[in-house]
Order: sequence, then structure tokens, then C-alpha cells
Amino acid sequence: MASLHPFDPIRPDEIQLACQILRASFKQTTLRFKTIEIKEPPKQDVIPYIEAERLGKPLPAKPARTIYALFHRLDSGAFIKALVNLDAKSVSSAKQLPAYVQGPVDVDEMMDIEKICLEHPDVIKEIEKMKLPKGVTVCNDPWIYGTDDPKESRRLFQCYMYIVSVEEPQTNHYSLPCTFSPVFDAITKELVRMDYLPTGAGHEIQATQPWKPIKAIEYAHDLLDEPLRSDLKPYIVQQPQGASFNVDGQLVEWQKWRFRVGFNYREGLVLYNVTYHKRNVFYRLSLSEMTVPYGDPRRPYHRKQAFDVGDVGLGITCNQLSLGCDCLGHIKYFDGWRTDSKGIAVQLKNVICLHEQDSGILHKHTNYRNAQATVVRNRQLAVQMICTVSNYEYIFAWYFDLAGGIEFEVRATGILSTAPINNQDGLSVPWSTNIGPGVSAPYHQHIFSLRIDPAIDGFNNTVVYEDSVPLPPELGVEDPYGVGYIAKTTVFDKAGYAENNVDTARSFKIRNDSVINKISGRPVAYKVKTLATQKMIMSPRGFNRRRAKFTDHDVWVTKYQDDELYAAGEFTNQSRGSEGVETWAERGDNVANSDVVVWHTFGLTHNPRPEDFPVMPVERISIHLTPSGFHEKNPALDVPPSTQAFNQSKLHADKPNLPADADETCCARDSKL
Amino acid sequence: MASLHPFDPIRPDEIQLACQILRASFKQTTLRFKTIEIKEPPKQDVIPYIEAERLGKPLPAKPARTIYALFHRLDSGAFIKALVNLDAKSVSSAKQLPAYVQGPVDVDEMMDIEKICLEHPDVIKEIEKMKLPKGVTVCNDPWIYGTDDPKESRRLFQCYMYIVSVEEPQTNHYSLPCTFSPVFDAITKELVRMDYLPTGAGHEIQATQPWKPIKAIEYAHDLLDEPLRSDLKPYIVQQPQGASFNVDGQLVEWQKWRFRVGFNYREGLVLYNVTYHKRNVFYRLSLSEMTVPYGDPRRPYHRKQAFDVGDVGLGITCNQLSLGCDCLGHIKYFDGWRTDSKGIAVQLKNVICLHEQDSGILHKHTNYRNAQATVVRNRQLAVQMICTVSNYEYIFAWYFDLAGGIEFEVRATGILSTAPINNQDGLSVPWSTNIGPGVSAPYHQHIFSLRIDPAIDGFNNTVVYEDSVPLPPELGVEDPYGVGYIAKTTVFDKAGYAENNVDTARSFKIRNDSVINKISGRPVAYKVKTLATQKMIMSPRGFNRRRAKFTDHDVWVTKYQDDELYAAGEFTNQSRGSEGVETWAERGDNVANSDVVVWHTFGLTHNPRPEDFPVMPVERISIHLTPSGFHEKNPALDVPPSTQAFNQSKLHADKPNLPADADETCCARDSKL
Repeated sequence: MASLHPFDPIRPDEIQLACQILRASFKQTTLRFKTIEIKEPPKQDVIPYIEAERLGKPLPAKPARTIYALFHRLDSGAFIKALVNLDAKSVSSAKQLPAYVQGPVDVDEMMDIEKICLEHPDVIKEIEKMKLPKGVTVCNDPWIYGTDDPKESRRLFQCYMYIVSVEEPQTNHYSLPCTFSPVFDAITKELVRMDYLPTGAGHEIQATQPWKPIKAIEYAHDLLDEPLRSDLKPYIVQQPQGASFNVDGQLVEWQKWRFRVGFNYREGLVLYNVTYHKRNVFYRLSLSEMTVPYGDPRRPYHRKQAFDVGDVGLGITCNQLSLGCDCLGHIKYFDGWRTDSKGIAVQLKNVICLHEQDSGILHKHTNYRNAQATVVRNRQLAVQMICTVSNYEYIFAWYFDLAGGIEFEVRATGILSTAPINNQDGLSVPWSTNIGPGVSAPYHQHIFSLRIDPAIDGFNNTVVYEDSVPLPPELGVEDPYGVGYIAKTTVFDKAGYAENNVDTARSFKIRNDSVINKISGRPVAYKVKTLATQKMIMSPRGFNRRRAKFTDHDVWVTKYQDDELYAAGEFTNQSRGSEGVETWAERGDNVANSDVVVWHTFGLTHNPRPEDFPVMPVERISIHLTPSGFHEKNPALDVPPSTQAFNQSKLHADKPNLPADADETCCARDSKL
Repeated sequence: MASLHPFDPIRPDEIQLACQILRASFKQTTLRFKTIEIKEPPKQDVIPYIEAERLGKPLPAKPARTIYALFHRLDSGAFIKALVNLDAKSVSSAKQLPAYVQGPVDVDEMMDIEKICLEHPDVIKEIEKMKLPKGVTVCNDPWIYGTDDPKESRRLFQCYMYIVSVEEPQTNHYSLPCTFSPVFDAITKELVRMDYLPTGAGHEIQATQPWKPIKAIEYAHDLLDEPLRSDLKPYIVQQPQGASFNVDGQLVEWQKWRFRVGFNYREGLVLYNVTYHKRNVFYRLSLSEMTVPYGDPRRPYHRKQAFDVGDVGLGITCNQLSLGCDCLGHIKYFDGWRTDSKGIAVQLKNVICLHEQDSGILHKHTNYRNAQATVVRNRQLAVQMICTVSNYEYIFAWYFDLAGGIEFEVRATGILSTAPINNQDGLSVPWSTNIGPGVSAPYHQHIFSLRIDPAIDGFNNTVVYEDSVPLPPELGVEDPYGVGYIAKTTVFDKAGYAENNVDTARSFKIRNDSVINKISGRPVAYKVKTLATQKMIMSPRGFNRRRAKFTDHDVWVTKYQDDELYAAGEFTNQSRGSEGVETWAERGDNVANSDVVVWHTFGLTHNPRPEDFPVMPVERISIHLTPSGFHEKNPALDVPPSTQAFNQSKLHADKPNLPADADETCCARDSKL
């Protein structure tokens, strides 16, 4: 393992060794493993290493590879968190966690609960009440349980049940929700309670009724009634000289950018040590957490609140990507590894993809006097993962561009979480949209926390925001026509938070006050183009808000400390309250010109449309990180011009008899006024 | 002309005929033409025609082709607006406009002012004071004058002067601004005043000084000191079966969409009669107006406020687009026509382009039980124009997608409007950014008005907005945990305005209350995904705001009336106040279930970065129009799956010896948790 980089993801031999060491240390019982993962090395140990790399100096010793492990003892059922020193082959610490602490859902557990549920006699009895015709059966999606009782410390799953075709593996069971929902204890495997789902205008429930057959609304191509459209012609991205990027292990180099692709079971894709033209830009970038609260007030829906990062993990829900399906052009894939419950390493093949894409014009100017144009196209390097969390899909992508910009994009797609409704007589409820016969989609929010650990020309930075406001009279500059405006700067001296402000075009920047831009005379900086979006609608008194305090503010600034990575805290599953960024911000550390971390909360309020079913056209949102006085001028001036010789476009011929490529001249002919 | 469609742009023979008719009618004097354009035909005359087309019925008579003409009489200097009936070959009306009304800048006028300025003895004297070395000279950009005096009725131009290399036609003169700025009367051709530009911290000006030679900061590839990067490999879009669109004249058909590409001197690109799968969606879509006020309070900058649509015209500033430079793939171009000052038709070649582009994944779902994935990629049809307004470029594009969505994108690029500054000792001013030696870029805003004339399943629509708010107690549904939320609807009964509201995720919709979606039980609708952006910062007492009242509110709703097309009114050049959407909204017409028009104001507060010079990487903003219960389910289900056979991607080989295309299997192998 000596050859591994400090930021390299866990290897299968590390998983195996860690489990061996743990088993040896807990000989008296069998262990059921949940998580075996690399513990992020201390930043102070990593910086000398990556700085030596950056500056081409001799490399110092690497920080130790330490394992973060979560597992259950099968004798006592105790849930244990341990740290394992792989070099010393020893357990550094092992701590039994309080009974109320629930670790994330793991893959084997999910499959296990599904099975237990379907085999339970009480569930079978309920299914029988539906008197299902031949050809259909019942399946279930175990859901994280959520929280409504601070005294609850069992590990629970809420199983949502659906009617499903036995013959069509691609059928859309979410179209046919059942009206009962058993709750299971994942440790004892016991049925805790049979919940019945309200299907009317209010809280009333009823016993399971015989099912009136309804056709599922299908999304899979094979199951559609309508024919596929045949007039969409192929669109092929050709890169005859190959891709412009170079990859060496997890290290990626592309167009002056250099970074390491990290991967872990929880956040999935992480970017480390992002530099531009050998200048430090970011130490670490990741989606830290997200939460999805639902707006249906009725039991058991009031507990529907997923934390897809902390409750499950974006890494273990990553899709295995396929050539030609998820991206166009030349694609490089990265794999990951996870443990299973027995401590066996499982490969997660092709979970991250890397490819280039065209992004239209980057800059253009036409000199109107002589009609000469300078045009440069933008190319982006995309680093992408796609996560399936039961019904829903998230496509997360980082895009690097040619002008020093980085974009983090979220595309929400997949299938809506559905609920049964007796809507044959036109009933609808005001917190959801009817999306088919007997099925509705409750309103909900997706609220994300992007964690930005900056390194703008160094590891000590200052976070500020700027408001565009009318020229203040105290500046003493006459403004008789009332046109003057300035950017008023507010510095984060102490850890804390701030809100977006559309009315002043508030702009958040991360500066390095020790490095002054020679042209502007102002500190070098990157702008975080925050998204101004609705906060969580739910009551601050309720569990939804208390479990996700990161959603209370748009931007948080904390002083860096090791292990402070997850906005809602380490353990979110059935949490009673968060212990995350709000706790760290409350310390009120001095953060000016120091090792700071910026956390941006943004979201989607998703009141479903019928068009979002049976599979949802992507809803896209993006955060942009752009240089703002980091460079002395446009850093993309040296990108070659966009020319026909390079791009090889084709002229569309309206009339098939005309030669299609008659016009081969190029940009210099541009003309205008 | 009988073959022309009511929405077809003006033809050269129409320009010629109109000018003949006008000359015949004004025999006693010579006419100097400014605008010869088609007057938009009355909607009530067009609807029967386009509805017959849509429904495949016999076509009724077309509305008459009427010409809207603006010209000066050279005897009296009077500025006249006339309507010409081409069929009757007669002038229907001709009206002398008040002296204070200024028409837009035209191409010949712009060239004329440049010449007059450079040849004027007082300007030559100022140039001599700079004692320029060999190899450089002076050029000027005539600017629209703006407004600071309601008694001013001369037609004025403010000429901004720059030092320019005599040898390099692509040199960036905006890098070297002079400190004097003559003002000319465009009618008398007289020098009105020599303005001197402040270059210090306040309002002080000084006499023209000898120039201390400075190298311009160049953007043109030939003039760069640094070598071009050589590691960006070709990226070619191949469409071996051609494009998926069909074009017949101005009519475009693509993937169930059908619309007409309109073009006029003022708005440039206009979309007419947009239908989806034979259902009406929009009658007319266009960028109605925009204004760019600058935040430098000092004379003469306090008058810097451009209305690029009304003061000049996006049509006449359109770039002539070139194959392989501005777009990739298969490109169709559309031409336009304008008049010159003598009444001669000038072709505007390739001013609008049409092409397809890939837009990543449109929807995806992976069934985690069997790892089967359904993936569909999005394809967009782009309709684009690029406008150069002196220093600055705007790229305007409409994108149609496969799921019924339309996006209007603005990319701002080109060269910042610059101002001289004595910054050799580090001086900077708080309303601008230093972008080079002796040159700064003042803060400014770009504020746009998008005009949406909807036809959601018919021509009578209702505009509403929805706020996502906690479940109101008066609904009587218990919500013990405070999680419930609903979308509260507010209907525009009367014409008026509303603001964005990020805190409630306010969502504006255009509904047809006569057509109920069978699945949702709610009226069919399109959502206007408004952008929440800062309003104009300038004082409401000043001219900037009074001339652009459309910027006072985010969304305006008016009752349709013919000739109400431009948000700041018909004549914006040197206007004293606007007479536009605010006037029409004030009528307070009943607009529920009627022929409504929606106007969306959005903008960019642009406090320049050094990276924005010498040519600015695009700043992108978009407005999305998305079906919201217009369809009963995802309308893109019938798009064929994304497969390797169709897309032909390539696997990147890290090690050159490995076969690159080893993995050819596809999406069905996707797997996950």
C-alpha cells in the first residue's frame, strides 16, 4: 500500500486486511460489517505531501492509511465504530455507539429487509386481502424510517409496498402503490407495526381492499404502448485524436487543471487537490449532505425525510455506467470498492466517468469596422456519478472549463416517490399531484449542502460577501443623477452564516488576502455563485428541521477541523437532531485569513407535474465556482480559435440537390453593423 | 408577395417597393430612410390563418403586408413615421414625430458619425495634444447619448475615443481609452461639446495630456504574446444521417415542435406560432427590450444607458455566422434584410442559425433489483443569433427539447465598455475594476425583458403564481409535526405585476382553464421559470429608472393589444421616460381567461473581473418555459433509448497498448445497491 496516494480510495486488500484485524480483535463474536472505509487523513499531514508534489520537490512521508469501520457484534447487537491502523495491523480505537445511533443502510441489509417483509405472515395476509389476479404480485421498497419520537432507539424500516407484474422485470411498480406499509426492526427482524396509508382527503385510513386492476404507467421502452419516435437521427461525438485529458491512477490532468478523483461509500465522488496551472484552488470539493422532506402531513408520511448521503451513501448507490449510454465521446471510467456485510470487498465498476464535452461559445468579439471575428468555443471536462436511491436518481457532475471555472451540477431524475389515492372520483389533495389512476406524488424538497474546502493560492483564505448597493453618500462623491453604485464588502471574521440576497445581487467570494492581483489591485479570489432557493418549509419545531439544521442558512463558514465533513453530522439515519455544520459554526472561531470551509445550502422545491411521471425529465441546478481576480486577464485567450478546419461542421441543405458543403470559409468573414 | 406567410420577414422587393411608394408620396424632398420593416399583422387577422394551417383546413385570406417606415425629410429635417400598404401601393399614414423623439441608430448613421468625428478640427486638435508616436492613431465608437435633460431635443452622439494601432486591424482599442469625448449633433453634424473624462478618484477632469505609450491588452489570436495551447484535441459532431429537423422557408419542424422563424431589424430573432404535437403553445416569443445602465456617477458617464433593442436593434447588429465557428454539427442558416439610408435593401446573410445539440441525460432510472436501466438522452434544437453592439456581444438562443421544454438563453461576451483611469499609482474607484494599465471597467447591469405571448391550448389563457407555503390551518387537516405544505395559487384577474419570491419558491404559470388535464384534474399549463435577479440599482428619481420602468417589476401581465411589443416603448433613444409595459399594465384590464401577454424582467449585475478582459468568457443566464400539466405524462417516453449502437462512444485507454473498444455492452448491465 506504500504506492497509494493519500487521497486514493480504499483498495480491496485494505478492506480484507481491516476486516481480518477487526475479527482478530473481536474473536468472541461474529461481526456484521456495515462500512469499511478510508478515514480522511489529517490535513496537516497531507499538505506537505501535496505541496511537494505541486512544487516538484522531494516527497515527504505519506500520512498513515487509517480505516474507519462500522459494524455490529452479532452476540450483543452492539453497534461499534472502530479505527484500524493498517500499517500497525491493529485496532486503534473501538467504541460502542449509543443505542439510538443508527448507521447507514447497507446493501445486504436492504435486500434482507425486502425478503423478511415479503415472507412475513402478516404481510402475506394483507397481500391476500387484495385478491390479486394472476400475473401480478407485490414487491416492497424498504424506506429509512425517519423520526417522530425521541425515545425510539430501535433500528426501523418502513416498507412501502407495490403491485408488480411477475413477468416484466422493467415494470413500474411505483405506479401501483398498496395501501398498507409494514414497519420492521432490522436487528430483531420483527414486524413492529402494520401501518395503513391514508387514501382520502384527510387522515382516515381503511382496511386493505381487493385490488381493482389498473394498468401501470410504464417508462421502459419495451413496455410502452406507443411506438418509439423514429425521426431522431444519430448524433455522434468524434474525437479522432482521442481525449485531451491524461489520467494516471486517480490523478487527472486537463487543460492546466490537475486534481485527484476520490471516492468513498458515503459521498461517492470527491475532488481533491484541485490546482490550475500549478496554483492551488481547492483542497476538497464534495456534496456533503442532502435531505428530502415530504410535505404530506399524514401518518406515516410525516416521517418521510431521506438523507441520501448520510442515511444510505452516494458511493454505494452509484450506477455502474455503460459506454454509449450515459455519456458521448471518449470516456474514462473509475471503479470503487465497498465491503459487504461479511467483510468481502465488492467492486463498484465504472461508478465515475470522465469525458469532455462541448459547451458552446466561450468568448466572441466581432470588430464591426472590419467584420473580423475572434471566436473561441468552451470545452468542459465532466466528472460524473449517477446515484439510484430506490425510486429516484441523482446525476452529479463536476465540470471544469477553459476559463478557470468549475460547475457542480445536480440533475434530479428517476421515479417520483408515490402514494396511493382514491382519485377515481376526481379527489386530489393540496400537498400532492395526481399522476395516474390511484396514484399521487407528494410535494417535497431536495436540499443539498455543497462543502467547499478552498485553497485559493494557499490554505489560508478569507470569506466575504459583496452587495451591489447605491453609492453611499459618506464616500463624498457627488451623484446628482442617482446612478452610482458600488460593491459593499462584508468579511466573515468569525465562523457563522449568511443568507443569499437577490435584491443586492449578493456575491460570495473566497479570497487570499496575502496575494494581490497586479491588475485589479485587489486580493485574488474565487466567487461561489450561490443559488438563491427556498429554505425548508417545514416547521422549525418539527424533526425535519431539527435533523437538518444545515438547511437553516444559505452559506455557512467554519474553521477547518479534521472529521468535520458532513453537514448534518456523522449519523443521520433516525437522528433526533443534527450535529453538523451548525455546531461547528457556533464555535465562532476566527476565520479571517485562516483555514476555512464554506458550505452552501441550496435546493429544489419539487411539486410534481404529471410530466414527471413515470420517469422524470431532469431538473437541473448548478453552482458555479469562478475565478474573480484570480487571473490578470481572461485565462482562455490562448485557446485556439473555433474554425471549420477544426470543427468540421456541415451546412444543412434545404434542397437535397444543392451541394451541402459549398460554404467552407470561416470566421474572418463575419460581419455586422 | 402572395406566397409570403403572415409571419415571414421583410423581403428585398418589399423594401424597394415601400421606398418607391414613399418617395412618390414625398416628391418635394429627398428622404433618408432609417427603418423599413413589416408591421406585425393584427393578431385577430392572423389567428384564423394559422389555426386553419394547424387543423389542416382550407386557408382563409392572408392579412395585408403593411410596412412600418421611419425616415427623415432632408428639407425640413423632420422625422416621420409612415405606414405603407404594399397591396394598394399607397401610404396609409404619415406622421411627423415630435422633435424630441429620436429613432434608433442606423448603420449608415453610425459610420457617418465616426467619420465626422475623426475629421472635425477640434477633435484633430485634441488628438494632436496626445503627441502620439508613429504606428498608432485614434478611432471612436459613437455611443447613444442617454438622457440627463428633459429639454434636450437634438439628436446627439457621445463619441468615445481610443488609441489604436494603424497596422493591426484586430487590435483591441478598448484597452487604450482617451480622456476626451466629443458630442455631435447627428442632424446638423456639428460638434456640440468636447467632454473630458474624469480619470481620478472623483469628478475632476484635466486637459488632454501627451500619451505615455502602453501596450494594448490583446484578444485576437494573432496578437497574443503567449503561444496558443496545443493540447485541446478536436471534438467533432457527426450526424451521418443529417439533421433531424425539416425546414421549409421560415417554417421549422423538429420532434413534434413546429414554429416559424421570424426576423426584424429591432428584435432580430422572433419565434411565431410555436406548437407541439399540433397543440398551440406560444403565439410569439421574443426578447422585447434590454437596458444597460452604468454605475459610474461622473459626467458624462451618468448618461451611459443603452437600450440595445430600441436604441439600435438586435436585427441590424446580428453577426453573419460562419460554418464551423459558431456552432457544431449540421447547421441551417437564415438570412434577413434591412434597408440602408438610401432605401436600398441590404442582405443580412446567415444571421440566424439552427442546429441540434446533445444536452446530456434527459431521464434515467435503474431498477436496483435487477440492475436494468432505462436511459434517454436529451437533444436540443438551438435557434441562435449573435449581436455585436459596438464593444459587446450577446448570444441569444432558444432551445427546444424532447420533453416539451423551451429555454431562452442569454450569453454575454465581447469586450467591456472601458474608461480611462490614472491607476499607475494604484488608484482604483469603488464603482469599477481596474483591468489594465490606464483602463478600468465600470460596474453595470444588463436588464432584459422577455415577452411571452402564450397560446396554451388556445389564445385565451390565465396567468397565476404559486407559493409553496406551510399547510394553512384553515384547511382543517391536522399536521402535528409541522411537515405539511401546499402550493397557494394567486390569479392575475387584472393586468399588473408581481415579484419573484425565493422564500416561497414562487412559480409563475400560464394556464388554460378551459382545458383540464385528465390525470392531474388541474388546468393545462406552462410554467415560466423566472429568474430572481437584482432590479435596477439606480435611483427611482433618476432618468435611468424612469426610462426603463419595465425594470421596476419582475413579471408583468398585460392584455394583448396590437402594437404593444416593446417593454420600454417604441422610441427609447434619448427617451425621457418609458411608455411601455408599465403603461399597458396600468390599464388594469381584466386578464383572466383572456388574450394575455407575460413580460419577464431579469438581469445580470456585472461588476467586472480582470478575467472579463480583454474579451469576456460568457456569462450565461436562462429562462425556461416548461410544460406543467400540459401533458398527461412525460412526453419524452417515446424517445429511443441511449445505446452504444446509436451513440458510438469510445472507451478511453489509459495504457495505449490496451484495445480501446473492448467494452461494447450497454445499459442493461447497469447495476447498483
